[in-house]
Amino acid sequence: MAQIVVIHGPNLNLLGQREPEIYGTSTLEDINRQLTELGNQHSVELEFFQSNHEGQIIDRIHSAIGSAEGILINPGAFTHYSIAIRDALSAVPIPAVEVHLSNIHAREEFRKLSVVAPVAVGQISGFGIQSYELGLLALVGHLQRLGRLT
Amino acid sequence: MAQIVVIHGPNLNLLGQREPEIYGTSTLEDINRQLTELGNQHSVELEFFQSNHEGQIIDRIHSAIGSAEGILINPGAFTHYSIAIRDALSAVPIPAVEVHLSNIHAREEFRKLSVVAPVAVGQISGFGIQSYELGLLALVGHLQRLGRLT
Amino acid sequence: MAQIVVIHGPNLNLLGQREPEIYGTSTLEDINRQLTELGNQHSVELEFFQSNHEGQIIDRIHSAIGSAEGILINPGAFTHYSIAIRDALSAVPIPAVEVHLSNIHAREEFRKLSVVAPVAVGQISGFGIQSYELGLLALVGHLQRLGRLT
Amino acid sequence: MAQIVVIHGPNLNLLGQREPEIYGTSTLEDINRQLTELGNQHSVELEFFQSNHEGQIIDRIHSAIGSAEGILINPGAFTHYSIAIRDALSAVPIPAVEVHLSNIHAREEFRKLSVVAPVAVGQISGFGIQSYELGLLALVGHLQRLGRLT
Amino acid sequence: MAQIVVIHGPNLNLLGQREPEIYGTSTLEDINRQLTELGNQHSVELEFFQSNHEGQIIDRIHSAIGSAEGILINPGAFTHYSIAIRDALSAVPIPAVEVHLSNIHAREEFRKLSVVAPVAVGQISGFGIQSYELGLLALVGHLQRLGRLT
Amino acid sequence: MAQIVVIHGPNLNLLGQREPEIYGTSTLEDINRQLTELGNQHSVELEFFQSNHEGQIIDRIHSAIGSAEGILINPGAFTHYSIAIRDALSAVPIPAVEVHLSNIHAREEFRKLSVVAPVAVGQISGFGIQSYELGLLALVGHLQRLGRLT
Amino acid sequence: MAQIVVIHGPNLNLLGQREPEIYGTSTLEDINRQLTELGNQHSVELEFFQSNHEGQIIDRIHSAIGSAEGILINPGAFTHYSIAIRDALSAVPIPAVEVHLSNIHAREEFRKLSVVAPVAVGQISGFGIQSYELGLLALVGHLQRLGRLT
Amino acid sequence: MAQIVVIHGPNLNLLGQREPEIYGTSTLEDINRQLTELGNQHSVELEFFQSNHEGQIIDRIHSAIGSAEGILINPGAFTHYSIAIRDALSAVPIPAVEVHLSNIHAREEFRKLSVVAPVAVGQISGFGIQSYELGLLALVGHLQRLGRLT
Amino acid sequence: MAQIVVIHGPNLNLLGQREPEIYGTSTLEDINRQLTELGNQHSVELEFFQSNHEGQIIDRIHSAIGSAEGILINPGAFTHYSIAIRDALSAVPIPAVEVHLSNIHAREEFRKLSVVAPVAVGQISGFGIQSYELGLLALVGHLQRLGRLT
Amino acid sequence: MAQIVVIHGPNLNLLGQREPEIYGTSTLEDINRQLTELGNQHSVELEFFQSNHEGQIIDRIHSAIGSAEGILINPGAFTHYSIAIRDALSAVPIPAVEVHLSNIHAREEFRKLSVVAPVAVGQISGFGIQSYELGLLALVGHLQRLGRLT
Amino acid sequence: MAQIVVIHGPNLNLLGQREPEIYGTSTLEDINRQLTELGNQHSVELEFFQSNHEGQIIDRIHSAIGSAEGILINPGAFTHYSIAIRDALSAVPIPAVEVHLSNIHAREEFRKLSVVAPVAVGQISGFGIQSYELGLLALVGHLQRLGRLT
Amino acid sequence: MAQIVVIHGPNLNLLGQREPEIYGTSTLEDINRQLTELGNQHSVELEFFQSNHEGQIIDRIHSAIGSAEGILINPGAFTHYSIAIRDALSAVPIPAVEVHLSNIHAREEFRKLSVVAPVAVGQISGFGIQSYELGLLALVGHLQRLGRLT
Repeated sequence: MAQIVVIHGPNLNLLGQREPEIYGTSTLEDINRQLTELGNQHSVELEFFQSNHEGQIIDRIHSAIGSAEGILINPGAFTHYSIAIRDALSAVPIPAVEVHLSNIHAREEFRKLSVVAPVAVGQISGFGIQSYELGLLALVGHLQRLGRLT
Repeated sequence: MAQIVVIHGPNLNLLGQREPEIYGTSTLEDINRQLTELGNQHSVELEFFQSNHEGQIIDRIHSAIGSAEGILINPGAFTHYSIAIRDALSAVPIPAVEVHLSNIHAREEFRKLSVVAPVAVGQISGFGIQSYELGLLALVGHLQRLGRLT
Repeated sequence: MAQIVVIHGPNLNLLGQREPEIYGTSTLEDINRQLTELGNQHSVELEFFQSNHEGQIIDRIHSAIGSAEGILINPGAFTHYSIAIRDALSAVPIPAVEVHLSNIHAREEFRKLSVVAPVAVGQISGFGIQSYELGLLALVGHLQRLGRLT
Repeated sequence: MAQIVVIHGPNLNLLGQREPEIYGTSTLEDINRQLTELGNQHSVELEFFQSNHEGQIIDRIHSAIGSAEGILINPGAFTHYSIAIRDALSAVPIPAVEVHLSNIHAREEFRKLSVVAPVAVGQISGFGIQSYELGLLALVGHLQRLGRLT
Repeated sequence: MAQIVVIHGPNLNLLGQREPEIYGTSTLEDINRQLTELGNQHSVELEFFQSNHEGQIIDRIHSAIGSAEGILINPGAFTHYSIAIRDALSAVPIPAVEVHLSNIHAREEFRKLSVVAPVAVGQISGFGIQSYELGLLALVGHLQRLGRLT
Repeated sequence: MAQIVVIHGPNLNLLGQREPEIYGTSTLEDINRQLTELGNQHSVELEFFQSNHEGQIIDRIHSAIGSAEGILINPGAFTHYSIAIRDALSAVPIPAVEVHLSNIHAREEFRKLSVVAPVAVGQISGFGIQSYELGLLALVGHLQRLGRLT
Repeated sequence: MAQIVVIHGPNLNLLGQREPEIYGTSTLEDINRQLTELGNQHSVELEFFQSNHEGQIIDRIHSAIGSAEGILINPGAFTHYSIAIRDALSAVPIPAVEVHLSNIHAREEFRKLSVVAPVAVGQISGFGIQSYELGLLALVGHLQRLGRLT
Repeated sequence: MAQIVVIHGPNLNLLGQREPEIYGTSTLEDINRQLTELGNQHSVELEFFQSNHEGQIIDRIHSAIGSAEGILINPGAFTHYSIAIRDALSAVPIPAVEVHLSNIHAREEFRKLSVVAPVAVGQISGFGIQSYELGLLALVGHLQRLGRLT
Repeated sequence: MAQIVVIHGPNLNLLGQREPEIYGTSTLEDINRQLTELGNQHSVELEFFQSNHEGQIIDRIHSAIGSAEGILINPGAFTHYSIAIRDALSAVPIPAVEVHLSNIHAREEFRKLSVVAPVAVGQISGFGIQSYELGLLALVGHLQRLGRLT
Repeated sequence: MAQIVVIHGPNLNLLGQREPEIYGTSTLEDINRQLTELGNQHSVELEFFQSNHEGQIIDRIHSAIGSAEGILINPGAFTHYSIAIRDALSAVPIPAVEVHLSNIHAREEFRKLSVVAPVAVGQISGFGIQSYELGLLALVGHLQRLGRLT
Repeated sequence: MAQIVVIHGPNLNLLGQREPEIYGTSTLEDINRQLTELGNQHSVELEFFQSNHEGQIIDRIHSAIGSAEGILINPGAFTHYSIAIRDALSAVPIPAVEVHLSNIHAREEFRKLSVVAPVAVGQISGFGIQSYELGLLALVGHLQRLGRLT
Repeated sequence: MAQIVVIHGPNLNLLGQREPEIYGTSTLEDINRQLTELGNQHSVELEFFQSNHEGQIIDRIHSAIGSAEGILINPGAFTHYSIAIRDALSAVPIPAVEVHLSNIHAREEFRKLSVVAPVAVGQISGFGIQSYELGLLALVGHLQRLGRLT
């Protein structure tokens, strides 16, 4: 079964605790469980990874070479300055989809621009947990259009 | 059955003809047909509207009051300067989702910022026709979370 | 009796419904009625026009040539980007006064600058419906100083 | 009778002498006389104050606490940099209206932005002496809407 | 005979009346007559179109598909912000030449940049009515070099 | 006993009245009383000065020459534009510490930069009245490290 | 006894060695020893943490949940770009105070803005080691005002 | 016969060799020959000048005083920074037309602004060799409208 | 004998004490004495005025009307932000020359721009005390060229 | 034998796989091997270190104190935002040379500025693997000029 | 007798002809004659040099080494972009004074900044021919203060 | 033997005299001698050229066509504004390497950006004379990789 790596960026481990008026009350485990199910429906196996360390996220992106078909990533705050993660994504031959729980275009000015998005297939932002689900569907769709998934 | 208005902005009537290397070969009718089907699966009825006129799009947003539960909008080039469309969306009590065929964050600098997104629920960009499908799902999900759709 | 054209820009047709905490609860009809009365007191006849279409507003400005002595305009969102309306106003030999219901200088950064104001006689912003009344008085005063109104 | 403080900022004492092609030929006394009359018509008593000293203007704003219902201010050149006057106005619980003789939006770039306007009720600019009259009417109207004037 | 569409943007209908010190005293009909003659000399037939509506200009550009070989456009004020017209021009497989009566590079800062020019063959500005004549010659020359005109 | 001048900038005389949700309910006298006590504990005598006049603050800084060992200053709104106060502080051979009641880095953009801070020993902001106490301790510490206080 | 976490950011482990003309000759151990003593005087227990890894600092902020009452942080160079640390601080319900050894407002332009400060209680900068002591006092004071410390 | 000076700026001597995909394969001699012919048709005599030296171009502009009626100039790279050439053109009482082979508005950002254009009659860019021909026609037209050419 | 007002801005009273490595060791009295002598040589009487108060400088400029022929002003730090002093100078019909002891163009970025210079006859900066002497000569020369001095 | 630390920043472990059209086909091992040889020729011993973790790179820079004479660093994407690495390099008394495989000055705008370069001896960019060799030679040369290498 | 080199930048050879409303009617010879006389009064010999070539001006600055004591330069349009002339001036051990006929601070935005002034002793601008005379006096004064002139 | 042209930009003729604390004490002849030797070792013949004239440098770049295999250039101050030299380099089919004696990235802001670098193979800056040697090695290496040198 084709594998997709789901990467959660910094502070997402606190989900459910952190600023619930912005990020909602579900935990990361809730999200992962829902995604796993949705993955099963589309015959893809998901691997989850969360880290507050930029370097570990880069390492995880690299280790996807040869094993994964796609990357679903919520880069969190790294979205706005980690050129290193951007470079990691453009260095591996694996399509990535960027997702955000909150609508980053409706918050502080510095959150409107993503240094990651230009190397992603696309970006989805503002739909809470559903952003991840839509991102997974988008990734699956993209891989099907590329013929890498059946 | 709950109604959702789907608004296609300027130049989208040319879809299939216009720069296919960026926008693909499907026509607007193809998109509308696929969306109608997807709407049926989620028990929402779709009304379609395309215009190259900013004013007509504003009028259509206004006329949604009292009849529609949600707006799915691809504002095309208006995304980047039509504060009037932004104001129209924030003036009506109907949630809107913004979608784009291409990844606007990976193109010219002036396409990275949306004046519309801050008043939308969220934004989806980069997945071709699938952007619309994901946007419809996002809208349906959002309306369900609000209890306006069952 | 001298004629003055009152132009209401995009989304103002929704007045009373739209974001009442910013724009108040009166409707456009209320405003027009009050202005008509005030016009009568100063012996000017008012013609009202509302449109969400930039082009129709330009057409209306043009058609004022030869019939109207002054223009009272609330360009709404067009205030901030419609160089075409600015050019229309500077193309006709009719003084214009710009009004705004809300205090545009106290809102988002992009609302602080008006591309229209440099070709208007002056700008009034922040007094709700009264902004229109003050604008009408300002226009009447300006025309009197020019000797175009007695 | 309710009191309103009218504050004239720097260089306005020269009115009538100073650059008449921009500011007209009336003197400050002319303005004050006309305003007093207009005030009488609306049952408000006016107190006038002119100063070229930022600090004295701040002091005068402070001393309005407890005695005045509104402030009518033409901050002159201070409009564009005196955050101290802005803070004074937001520090006292008295509504203020900002007025300008010339159309500041049609002059040098640095005159287009007001650091004072965001804490005022609104701004009126471009109508010569009439700007003050309109400003007084606006202030009276605002106080009536607040129920502080009858 | 090959057809060329000549599009006049907003406020150009007022030509001859509007700010003659900038735009001269000829009317749009004068220009069209001169251009028709010049077109005859080069065996191209001209179709004229003027509108103050951005949307109508976009529609006209679209309808040129299949019938016209080239577009000669003076986008007027839309030059500086209508990304929608830019997108319309890049969406149709028809070369366009941008012309301006006045030297836009010698006026206000905001008139120096054109969002349309990057998708045009070239830009001609500053020669009054002659700008249109030169633009037509430029377009004819370009079509000849492409082999689409003989 | 060594003397320290405490300078309160514009609008601070209103403390306790002015926007209590930002600045708290203590008055300037409260602050001065607490600081006097704290000064006694560290064997420094405090002189207090408040003014809404930039010029008076400059005069006061100058008059500190020869009598005071340090300056504790809350420049209020002058923080952001008074290069004259900055120059006054760098013109006298007396170390100064800048304090702010509110966290200026968490408010409007224009409050984030201080033209005074580059010539101060350091800056303390955000702790209400305690900012002054910490500032006094910082100044005492700095003077002790310089050997000007024992 | 209430606990406070003291976090030293990147390169602070070199203190005493690194650029002594800017940062002084004390080591991190000296600072920690002094702070411990000061903490004892105010009945708070301090936990120290230094790291050159952004991710470890984020982890440490998270792990403070449930055990610590306050965070005293010198984010070092991360001050100016780590939105991830900012988000970590705003994600945990624990007040934080930001301190700097040098006066960051008197150095390179890029050091004047802190992305962390807007979510901190306040910022103290420029007093060498004493900045930490003042920061601890500020934090204790803040917690007392909140009633979380007695 | 009236004389017109044609000035070719830096690197244009390489025409035909230099980046032919941008500049085409004709040489400067080809251009000059074509222009001479066109000049003959309009009874103007052309003098050609090419230089890679800013100073020589300025000298040549000066020496046109008293002998030439117009200047046709392609300032090449100097377009974007030579204020000295701009000043030379505004110092001589001879109208100048600016031309460019490539569409400078469609290339790098720094090529979009011309420091020369504000003192020229107009600018023509994007039509290859034909840009020169159109420029000559524009200059002849302009001189005829001024009555300096018959 | 014609009168010239010499205005010294903020902090100049400290001359001789203040940062001698930038401003030299002469006092204001030294400068005034030297200028008086130079004035005598050119048959102009000098009146001196120093103030740290922006408002007093404005008042002094106003009071020059009717008595003085010229103003020699070193606006000190006000050079860079006092639009009120700029307006005062443009409001009185008396030519002014701006001088600076230090070379303001060779110091901090914010000292390079003068808001006063655009309304002065000219600016002299960088020659220590001699800047004043040159300024006086410049003013005398300017008045002679205007025929206001013999 | 003198030691030099060679630090490879994020994503360089993928060398040979990653975007070969930009970075070439050699692997990091190839580079290290060639550099070792070149080091031998100049009697310096090389220690290699690669990490995708900013913190580990800072740690490695610190641990060079006392053991290494120079640092050869390709900071990769960190070049453009890691002020922490910049501070680490300026905190250790060891000269560093910055190298880049690609010509960073010819890529995206954000890659043109290096926050690291101001504290390095110099920067070499654009020569593929040879950039490292030239960097090593530059570092050896610099150390010889300092007398730290013989 | 000590020598001073007077350098006139581009377009100044046209003086008297060029835009007399800005630059006056005297010719360069007039200026040189007046300066020679003034030089004689102060026992300095003047050498004059005018060029429209940046390179020749740099050469002339270099050749002043060993023969001249000072440089009086009006860099004309080069003032605003010739970093090469700036570097030439800072490369020779000869003080330079920058002069301008017109008040460059009162013209276009791009004329307000001088890249040359930061390496000059000072700048004089706005006094027509007299600017040169004042500049010569300033230079003589500066050399006297340095003890290089008696 | 293959030829390489070495171009030294403005002010480099003064090397050894000019600001030795920045540029060192070697002369241009020293550099050329060292480079010649190094060239011999790699079987390339060097031609040297220095000029303070932008135009001459452009001419020299042009004349390299057909005779030289590579260009080693230190554009000096022209680095930062000579788009004409940039265009010359991109107009000739000869690879160029840009070198700088000082670390331009560690000096004034305006020296950090090079308009030349985007069309060079790469840039080397900061190693004194050695920058040239490294640049020559880089050029030789590049030519070898292209197969143009053996």
